[in-house]
Amino acid sequence: MAEFDVIVIGAGPGGYLAAERAGQAGLKTLLIEKQHIGGTCLNEGCIPTKTLLRSAKLYDAAVSGKPYCVTVEGAALDHKAVVERKRAVTANLVAGVKAGLKAAKVKTVEAPAMIKGRNEAGFAVEAAGEVHHGKNLILAVGSHPIVPGIEGLADCLKSGFVLTSTELLEIPEVPESLCVIGGGVIGLEMATYFAMAGAKIEIVEAMGKVAGNLDADATAVIQKACEKMGMNFRLNTRAVSFTDGKVTVEADGKREEIACEKALLCIGRAANLEGYGLETLHVPTVNHAITVDEHCMTGIPGVYAVGDCNGTGMLAHVAYRQAEVAVNHILGKDDPMRWACVPSLVHTEPEAAFVGQSLEEAKANGIDAAGVKLSMNYSGLYLAENENGQGIIKAVFDKKKKTMIGATIVGGPASELITICGMMIDNELPVERMKSYVFPHPTCAEAIREAIFAAKL
Amino acid sequence: MAEFDVIVIGAGPGGYLAAERAGQAGLKTLLIEKQHIGGTCLNEGCIPTKTLLRSAKLYDAAVSGKPYCVTVEGAALDHKAVVERKRAVTANLVAGVKAGLKAAKVKTVEAPAMIKGRNEAGFAVEAAGEVHHGKNLILAVGSHPIVPGIEGLADCLKSGFVLTSTELLEIPEVPESLCVIGGGVIGLEMATYFAMAGAKIEIVEAMGKVAGNLDADATAVIQKACEKMGMNFRLNTRAVSFTDGKVTVEADGKREEIACEKALLCIGRAANLEGYGLETLHVPTVNHAITVDEHCMTGIPGVYAVGDCNGTGMLAHVAYRQAEVAVNHILGKDDPMRWACVPSLVHTEPEAAFVGQSLEEAKANGIDAAGVKLSMNYSGLYLAENENGQGIIKAVFDKKKKTMIGATIVGGPASELITICGMMIDNELPVERMKSYVFPHPTCAEAIREAIFAAKL
Repeated sequence: MAEFDVIVIGAGPGGYLAAERAGQAGLKTLLIEKQHIGGTCLNEGCIPTKTLLRSAKLYDAAVSGKPYCVTVEGAALDHKAVVERKRAVTANLVAGVKAGLKAAKVKTVEAPAMIKGRNEAGFAVEAAGEVHHGKNLILAVGSHPIVPGIEGLADCLKSGFVLTSTELLEIPEVPESLCVIGGGVIGLEMATYFAMAGAKIEIVEAMGKVAGNLDADATAVIQKACEKMGMNFRLNTRAVSFTDGKVTVEADGKREEIACEKALLCIGRAANLEGYGLETLHVPTVNHAITVDEHCMTGIPGVYAVGDCNGTGMLAHVAYRQAEVAVNHILGKDDPMRWACVPSLVHTEPEAAFVGQSLEEAKANGIDAAGVKLSMNYSGLYLAENENGQGIIKAVFDKKKKTMIGATIVGGPASELITICGMMIDNELPVERMKSYVFPHPTCAEAIREAIFAAKL
Repeated sequence: MAEFDVIVIGAGPGGYLAAERAGQAGLKTLLIEKQHIGGTCLNEGCIPTKTLLRSAKLYDAAVSGKPYCVTVEGAALDHKAVVERKRAVTANLVAGVKAGLKAAKVKTVEAPAMIKGRNEAGFAVEAAGEVHHGKNLILAVGSHPIVPGIEGLADCLKSGFVLTSTELLEIPEVPESLCVIGGGVIGLEMATYFAMAGAKIEIVEAMGKVAGNLDADATAVIQKACEKMGMNFRLNTRAVSFTDGKVTVEADGKREEIACEKALLCIGRAANLEGYGLETLHVPTVNHAITVDEHCMTGIPGVYAVGDCNGTGMLAHVAYRQAEVAVNHILGKDDPMRWACVPSLVHTEPEAAFVGQSLEEAKANGIDAAGVKLSMNYSGLYLAENENGQGIIKAVFDKKKKTMIGATIVGGPASELITICGMMIDNELPVERMKSYVFPHPTCAEAIREAIFAAKL
């Protein structure tokens, strides 16, 4: 007989929430984590980054206050203290997660987990020298930064010249210059902190644009703001070799050397598939990620995969949601994953966020769609709070259904505002109904209202 | 024959939006304004206040950056420049409103309006020596600060010792000390600016609590934050006489003198009912406000009243909405005012906002309701961004319908977050559906998600 209803491997957002929800539902739950409760997100991802950015944005606002009639002398950002504060914030949140797990009566083992197979007692998982059995198994084993086979890279990672975001978040001194390999969301957020903290930044991006899937107009606003901050962007450019103190890049067949104190490697992340004994169960994978259905179940009944390791999102909030989807499936509740309104955030300065379909995607999907693009200055509050603000809002509507199906926001608290749009999209709220909703004044959210009224449906 | 389909009197949020929407719908529209296009909100209300607060909060953040590892040796807030900037922001927004009116082909007359009566050509209104006729009349004549008959008050208003918010927003120097008579939203927002700008603040409030209808727990957080900023609160205290440099107050039958450089009178606002010839049409009023139905129509068919003058909200966003309600009624569209989800904002530091019913109100309304109260620290972003943050979220749910019916938020961008709750309330979104919505991480909005999961329904 299995001692546990559910064994969860990995205690990042997907794993700890799955364990907590399972425990809250009365399931006997075991959570096994080999490194940090809280996983990448809490320990070396979202939260640490945002803690750093809080300080940097505060510093930047203080030294750039002139247009708002505020001037300061002798401003300083204490990077060492920022790193200390980051540790304290993380510790505080990890303590909260542990308290939640305890309250949900989850048994936690902090040790590597190894799947041993399946027998009449259930799925067998070994941790800390003991074999546990679970009726269900939730894999939440996360991801790791991709390290491509570029000349000299392995040596430079060893020497500490090249860092991944994990190490960069712990760096004791702000480097004089930082070459960021990969202009995705992680790269831009890291670059924003270190630029504000005083580093000279080069961004090397292999594609023709930065910020991943962020809309091109929105990306242009972000890139311009980053350039104003002193960053230099090299698009359509690949890193081809590394030696200490030097990154060689290639664009249009021409090579160039970038001298820098440190280099950050952030070209993407890949699912963790090795070292857990997944092969013992023959867990199916495609494109180096565990395949799952809309209930986050792998091909094997009773085995689920949530978060980064299933390769569907690489976002903490996707992991949170999938944790619930998997646990609800175990509980027999019909609660499939909905993909139409998973938002993405870019915590640069200004912030950007998007959700749903772009106009191009909607048209490609055969939808008779209408787009709206407005300046965020349509919000009186945004105008009052931003001198020369370049923020924009783009919204996409289904002309037949007369509902919003996509939105992109740059400027103001974009990451908070996007939830308003996401809820409209997810619930297919009719535009006419949205027009009669009372948006409070003065807020940046009023720009959403303006976009709704501007839609030609 | 009437030359106009609609004549709008007053160009504040209610009036200018009514005129714009009427014009956009193809109605021949005349807008008459005696003082400022944009009305109180744009010229001496919300927008000027938020412009001032933007600078003050920036200054305050710069000098209070220590917990975030940011220090400054010297900092200055240039109040004169802030007032200049406020004028520029206002002018920019007023220009935007004028452009909107022009695009909607609204005829605008900047002069006092006087209703002359009604004849076969429609409602007759005189402005700038000309009489115009409209098939419909929208009254958007606004409100003014209440000046009670307190001893010495009239003289002290004349001498400039006592100011209303209108004059205070134009004051060239920050007074050393400011006694705020009335601890409502306007009083607290003004007090926040002037406290951050260096004034010593006394708040005199006749009731047992400040911040108007804001929830008591939320008010406690705000009041504590204001006290930390150096403000002194005198509750259950009334101003009983004024002489230059001195306000005499009474509490528990005891009198005390407060010496101060200036006093701000902000005990409330009353509808403007005089000087427009409303009596000519016998426009019905109750409690010193024009009575309207759910279409914002007065007792007289074809005559509407929107915004402050109908006494239903005294909020710019209520005026905006009512403008649309009135115009839609003229256009024959069924679009009644919905009151269940009109949000209220308090732009203090931290911000507060609320919408819908409190637990007490819900119970009084016979609803089987459940309340949730959580620290905003349930949001990892809030925790990362606020050292010792005291923010809270309170949510109220209908246990039978299993929907949210009220929410109060203090901390983070509360004024933006409240729209998320308002939309849930307005659309009666089932809690189960809300649970499966993907809230982006890391955001303060995640505290709403936590409140939803914490509800015992």
